[in-house]
Amino acid sequence: MIFELSKEYLEALQLAFETGDVAFVRDTMEGVNSADISALLDEVDSDTAKFVIDILNDELGADILEDLEDDTRNKFLEKFEPKELAGYIIEMESDDAADVINQLPVKKREQVISHINDPETAAHVMELMRYDDDCAGGLMAKEMIVANINWTVVQTIEEIRRQRENVEKIYSIYVVDDHNNLQGKVSVKKIILSSDHTRIQDIFDEDIISVETYLDEEEVADIMQKYDLDAVPVVNLQGKLVGRITIDDVVDVITEQAEEDMQLMAGISSDVEEDDSIWAISKARLPWLLIGLVGGMLGAWAIGYFENDIRDNAALAMFIPLVMATGGNVGIQSSTLVVQSLANKSVFEDTFLKRLGKMILIAILSGVVLGAFSFLLVYVVNGSSQLGLVVAVALQGVVLLASFMGTSTPLVLDKFGINPALASGPFITTTNDILGIIVYLAVANLLL
Amino acid sequence: MIFELSKEYLEALQLAFETGDVAFVRDTMEGVNSADISALLDEVDSDTAKFVIDILNDELGADILEDLEDDTRNKFLEKFEPKELAGYIIEMESDDAADVINQLPVKKREQVISHINDPETAAHVMELMRYDDDCAGGLMAKEMIVANINWTVVQTIEEIRRQRENVEKIYSIYVVDDHNNLQGKVSVKKIILSSDHTRIQDIFDEDIISVETYLDEEEVADIMQKYDLDAVPVVNLQGKLVGRITIDDVVDVITEQAEEDMQLMAGISSDVEEDDSIWAISKARLPWLLIGLVGGMLGAWAIGYFENDIRDNAALAMFIPLVMATGGNVGIQSSTLVVQSLANKSVFEDTFLKRLGKMILIAILSGVVLGAFSFLLVYVVNGSSQLGLVVAVALQGVVLLASFMGTSTPLVLDKFGINPALASGPFITTTNDILGIIVYLAVANLLL
Repeated sequence: MIFELSKEYLEALQLAFETGDVAFVRDTMEGVNSADISALLDEVDSDTAKFVIDILNDELGADILEDLEDDTRNKFLEKFEPKELAGYIIEMESDDAADVINQLPVKKREQVISHINDPETAAHVMELMRYDDDCAGGLMAKEMIVANINWTVVQTIEEIRRQRENVEKIYSIYVVDDHNNLQGKVSVKKIILSSDHTRIQDIFDEDIISVETYLDEEEVADIMQKYDLDAVPVVNLQGKLVGRITIDDVVDVITEQAEEDMQLMAGISSDVEEDDSIWAISKARLPWLLIGLVGGMLGAWAIGYFENDIRDNAALAMFIPLVMATGGNVGIQSSTLVVQSLANKSVFEDTFLKRLGKMILIAILSGVVLGAFSFLLVYVVNGSSQLGLVVAVALQGVVLLASFMGTSTPLVLDKFGINPALASGPFITTTNDILGIIVYLAVANLLL
Repeated sequence: MIFELSKEYLEALQLAFETGDVAFVRDTMEGVNSADISALLDEVDSDTAKFVIDILNDELGADILEDLEDDTRNKFLEKFEPKELAGYIIEMESDDAADVINQLPVKKREQVISHINDPETAAHVMELMRYDDDCAGGLMAKEMIVANINWTVVQTIEEIRRQRENVEKIYSIYVVDDHNNLQGKVSVKKIILSSDHTRIQDIFDEDIISVETYLDEEEVADIMQKYDLDAVPVVNLQGKLVGRITIDDVVDVITEQAEEDMQLMAGISSDVEEDDSIWAISKARLPWLLIGLVGGMLGAWAIGYFENDIRDNAALAMFIPLVMATGGNVGIQSSTLVVQSLANKSVFEDTFLKRLGKMILIAILSGVVLGAFSFLLVYVVNGSSQLGLVVAVALQGVVLLASFMGTSTPLVLDKFGINPALASGPFITTTNDILGIIVYLAVANLLL
């Protein structure tokens, strides 16, 4: 049922492009899902991809364009004349149409819109283009079934018939008053099971969750996830129904958010993928590496400060990595738990003090276990119980400090509206490296 | 529209519980969404929660039980008699019912099932309990509208009427032959717009994507996400329709997976949350901390091996943290990109050699930049151009090695069916720490 793509097929397709073998494309792509064709076209050059799309019908072409990856689509849109693009745009859902047009250079946008020969579609697309990408307005589409509260079931069915080409899938039927203010929803099931002359106002459900156009996309995702919604209506500030968001778009938001958080944790400063250019990847990675370098220099300065102690007891240097690594690990563990807890906001957040208290207890527990182990290990390796004690005491201090930094940094960032995932990455590691070194050498200075 | 919970309300609820004020609960919870009540009950003790659920009707109680967090529900289920639980189970969708029952001790499971007085529901739940949690069978529910291919539209509407209490929301109507083999689907829109005596076989859509019961939940999520499905039918090995999975359950799978990956990256070995017990959190964190400790001891051993060099030139020790940190950062960046690329499998994966080639180029580029900077920094701090050269050369080597480890480890883990996110965490950091130290001190030994 699911299209399996082989290297052989890709080669045959390339050959078909070179020889202009239209029949091959038409035959082999018959009945294949657009998402599979998109995945295929992500792998070929723009000219071959355009060759394929030109052969297929506009509706399928539009679906494919929607599904292409952003980078591929970007290169690819250049190949099309504004008029050709307008043909595909008309076949798309309004939200995808707006996204595609927004990817074009400003001048080409206007040309494409001027070629959209259906004024309603053009108006919808232009309306949606106004919204920022990352808010409810940027996610919503205009295609939906809306029933007036005074209608009967048969009038509503008439509306479904009128919209049957535009609305691919009916989620709920939204109910509005004469001023287009959202009043509720009625399920398709109820429409089917009610007699023709039943009035919508007698069967509709007033309990409806809606979002406002300017709500952040992540909050939209949270709401849809919490209430298990597969679609949510969008209203403007005046409570008028302006669109609807479906769960498939929100799934993409959730996935992208998770990837972004993971990259922040890893110290990658912008959204790159493994198949991006060497330059793009290096540019995203170097900032944090350079910050790490500066952190390393601060560490060097700290060690330099205790140089005499190390000269007196060279074995001291041996355990710098151990202390640093433990500080880094503890810090990342702590901050990750806080970041995840901030992401799954519960009704009542623990207070800062309660969080710190718990953190301290966990740190003491871990510190005791790690301290005991490290004492043994150092004693076995080095034979000095005094050095073992230094390491054990230092570890306890480092674990406490690293836990504190790991717990408080994301909370502070979150307070200032900065993504707390930033804290779980190189920032925490770098800070804890330096703190770890200082604590360790200071303890050694005191105890040895 | 969305219920806002205040600390005051929570206190008033606690008081209502103590004084047995049933009316307060009934009045204030009227019309509140079950997801909000669940979020509220996650914050109170089990006795108060049971008090609230007992007051509300069984249907709402069932919705609340479904939505509770696993930990809360676990404590909470103990409070109910098997017979009470059976009352809620009957009101749940079959997949949620099976999940709840599977949370009970084995003996209680049987008692609850024996109290389910609807044999069809009992059979459904028992069927679903057989499947592993993390496969399609474990995600699917039995509630769906199924039409025989030989039926007419009016017969299908009759089936919808018959099932109206069971099937809360109609996604698609699945079409089967006389042997219950899945043939396709028909949209509700088509049912509404077709005349009563139209035959299903004339209007149904043969193109349907289905999954088999034993497909892994993450693959189910990938398929639903790729094809933008809001529901997918599940068939057994014989192609017979046995259930359907809806997108809301898959959204949970995606979210949990992202959280799990993030925790693996942070060196947290089991699924814990910030509000879990101190013991649970410590237990999840200590294994990687101890492994880090062992790694630190190996680092100590490496430094010990070069002890004479450090004794001769104590300034050498200063730059151990810098080299270690850079190795760790580069390793995590590399492995994260590979992990994400493995998660978003494209049709053709780059070969191992192509990946390595690209990685080497990026590593050389980063290494040159970092090397140049570190040379300057060391020269400024330490005044020794020779030591600057050692650090710069060592960094180039460390960046190369760390990139290699970061790129290859997740690929190897993935080959063996182990979650590659494991590689982005403390494992990579620890390995790179040790390699970094060895490379740095070996370079110093050669050049100084």
